[in-house]
Amino acid sequence: MEHLFCKRVKKLKASEIREILKLTQRPEIISFAGGLPAPEMFPVEAYKQMAIKVLDEMGMEALQYSTTEGYDPLREKIAARMGNCGISAEKQDILITNGSQQGLDFTGKIFINPGDYVLCESPSYLGAINAFRAYECEFQEVDTDSDGMVMESLELAIQEHPKAKFIYVIPDFQNPSGRTWSKERRIKLVEIANRYNLVIIEDNPYGELRYEGEAIPAIKSFDTEGRVVYLGTFSKTFSPGLRIGWVCASPLLLNKYITVKQGADLQASSISQRELNAYLENYDFDAHIGSIINTYKKRRDLMLSEMDKTFPKAAVYEIPKGGLFAWVMLPEEIDAKEIMVTAVENKVAFVPGGSFFPNGGKENSMRLNFSNMPEEKIIEGIGRLGKILSELM
Amino acid sequence: MEHLFCKRVKKLKASEIREILKLTQRPEIISFAGGLPAPEMFPVEAYKQMAIKVLDEMGMEALQYSTTEGYDPLREKIAARMGNCGISAEKQDILITNGSQQGLDFTGKIFINPGDYVLCESPSYLGAINAFRAYECEFQEVDTDSDGMVMESLELAIQEHPKAKFIYVIPDFQNPSGRTWSKERRIKLVEIANRYNLVIIEDNPYGELRYEGEAIPAIKSFDTEGRVVYLGTFSKTFSPGLRIGWVCASPLLLNKYITVKQGADLQASSISQRELNAYLENYDFDAHIGSIINTYKKRRDLMLSEMDKTFPKAAVYEIPKGGLFAWVMLPEEIDAKEIMVTAVENKVAFVPGGSFFPNGGKENSMRLNFSNMPEEKIIEGIGRLGKILSELM
Repeated sequence: MEHLFCKRVKKLKASEIREILKLTQRPEIISFAGGLPAPEMFPVEAYKQMAIKVLDEMGMEALQYSTTEGYDPLREKIAARMGNCGISAEKQDILITNGSQQGLDFTGKIFINPGDYVLCESPSYLGAINAFRAYECEFQEVDTDSDGMVMESLELAIQEHPKAKFIYVIPDFQNPSGRTWSKERRIKLVEIANRYNLVIIEDNPYGELRYEGEAIPAIKSFDTEGRVVYLGTFSKTFSPGLRIGWVCASPLLLNKYITVKQGADLQASSISQRELNAYLENYDFDAHIGSIINTYKKRRDLMLSEMDKTFPKAAVYEIPKGGLFAWVMLPEEIDAKEIMVTAVENKVAFVPGGSFFPNGGKENSMRLNFSNMPEEKIIEGIGRLGKILSELM
Repeated sequence: MEHLFCKRVKKLKASEIREILKLTQRPEIISFAGGLPAPEMFPVEAYKQMAIKVLDEMGMEALQYSTTEGYDPLREKIAARMGNCGISAEKQDILITNGSQQGLDFTGKIFINPGDYVLCESPSYLGAINAFRAYECEFQEVDTDSDGMVMESLELAIQEHPKAKFIYVIPDFQNPSGRTWSKERRIKLVEIANRYNLVIIEDNPYGELRYEGEAIPAIKSFDTEGRVVYLGTFSKTFSPGLRIGWVCASPLLLNKYITVKQGADLQASSISQRELNAYLENYDFDAHIGSIINTYKKRRDLMLSEMDKTFPKAAVYEIPKGGLFAWVMLPEEIDAKEIMVTAVENKVAFVPGGSFFPNGGKENSMRLNFSNMPEEKIIEGIGRLGKILSELM
């Protein structure tokens, strides 16, 4: 029956991260793979109270079909929160999705014809690469430095691929590199997109988790022509198990996302949207994010200091000012996939960096998650990794 | 920016049903449009107890990421329930989706190359037509009679479109026609699919809501070569607001659905899956379905008898033995879209049948939902419609 599969899925393979996650779910493994929040930070009791409240006050409505766009009071609250990163938005600019991953899938579905080039940071988020690849695109990776994407390289890439539709970026605490774009680069990116008539996909799952320095306004806050699509999520600040994210975009673009959502699964969960809305009404969400930041900052600091102690000097990293990940560059001749095999034998796991380069060929990096493991396991796990690396380098 | 949209979405339009639903959400309208369950049948109190139980017993796990395939205990229970329609399945044959609409979208994504023909019943479910159309297919409608799809017409259609990949059918209480396939047709369909090496997509959202007669085994129960993909959902028997459905298929096919689910939105809601699983463990789901059947059967009987009283003789229908819909055929010269305009002026709504014929050209039918409106509104609404029809015919 395999001949019945269409072209787009013949190329698809299961996400390496998902496969690794399965491997690392064994309880004896200290896992820095995956991008899981710390479950002990989930507001379980508050969520229970809100589930009771919603089912008591609007149970029938919460279990019924509702509109594709999403629950209006939640859309309003999200629109208002967009002000935190400098974006002026209203309810009608917001579509509720099943996490921001669904926004990525819809982006592929809306823009990509087979053979189209997607312009992205090098490295970039594996989940986005897989979502776009399902629509048979090619990737043009654009160089990045510690201020974000290099704009001269971007212009060259656009000129090389004049039929590219959009530029996909994660400007805050990027997955996997942990890097954050400067304000100047953000402004420049919008200017370039305007000039070449391109769309920008701004994926911002981590922006609210900043551990030092001043927040930088979102790229969409500099959008003058309604060409930036902003993807947000509650997965890292509230709960990923709910699957609630959103798209914020101008009407011309958002309408396409809404139409695609209709065909894809009609709507996001009526009940989860109402529970989350009730939480935002009745609890101090910013204080909750503050407590997540406290915990993750400690874990980041601990991971970095343990790396300083145990990793060989040739393994280098930049300090991630927020988010969930540390990104470690190894000497060019080292293949992190091989290190991963030894690591799992030693009951510690990470994601080899090669997966984050859509065109491959760069195997000398490791992505380490610091949000999910408690402190004693960070010490133990980084120690084990340090030992493996020291024997190799 | 419109030139940046890809070919597949340039053709897409918003679902007419969704647009009509918006119109008919005004409380003064008696709506037989949409396919909404009766909200007063939702097990609100039981669901609240299960939300409390899940959050108390496994709150952190319920709010965390989990596997793409779905929550194992729920997959097991679904696999066991498949026995009710004669299907022998195990946990690993089940993928949890966001309602069966997502299974339809994935079907399009997995099988359809642009220009491919989809073989379907004439008429067929509008949501499936829209989901498939997003992957740039064409449709070959196949004649149906009161025993289901006419097999001779199907063979001719297959011979006319030798590159068709799958046959899409709703064999139980079809949406929109309310018709149910005979056992002989089901067996014959599998035989034809085997012979021509095609996949069958069996969409069965209504099968458990039978008001008279004996249940007929699912098409998948006759599947000898693992080529039937069965789509199920809890939307009509439990709650559509949860967005929990499933795909049941053999490993070769199911693995593609799992890979596509990863890229589309990673996984279904961790918490909703656990709540539903707890409900199935702690309550009598079959008794609950029994009470839905009692209510809907009364509403169906009432709607049909009111149609007998008030509709002109030239408006004809078959008795739907289950499901949510009555399907009324009008004389050929009547355009139900025009009737809908007058109906909404008279504060009653239905879905004009033309939308259910993917190739168009058949406007003389109406789909009437009998599950959602209480009995006094069925009497009043059918009376209003009868008056409008009598003035026209």
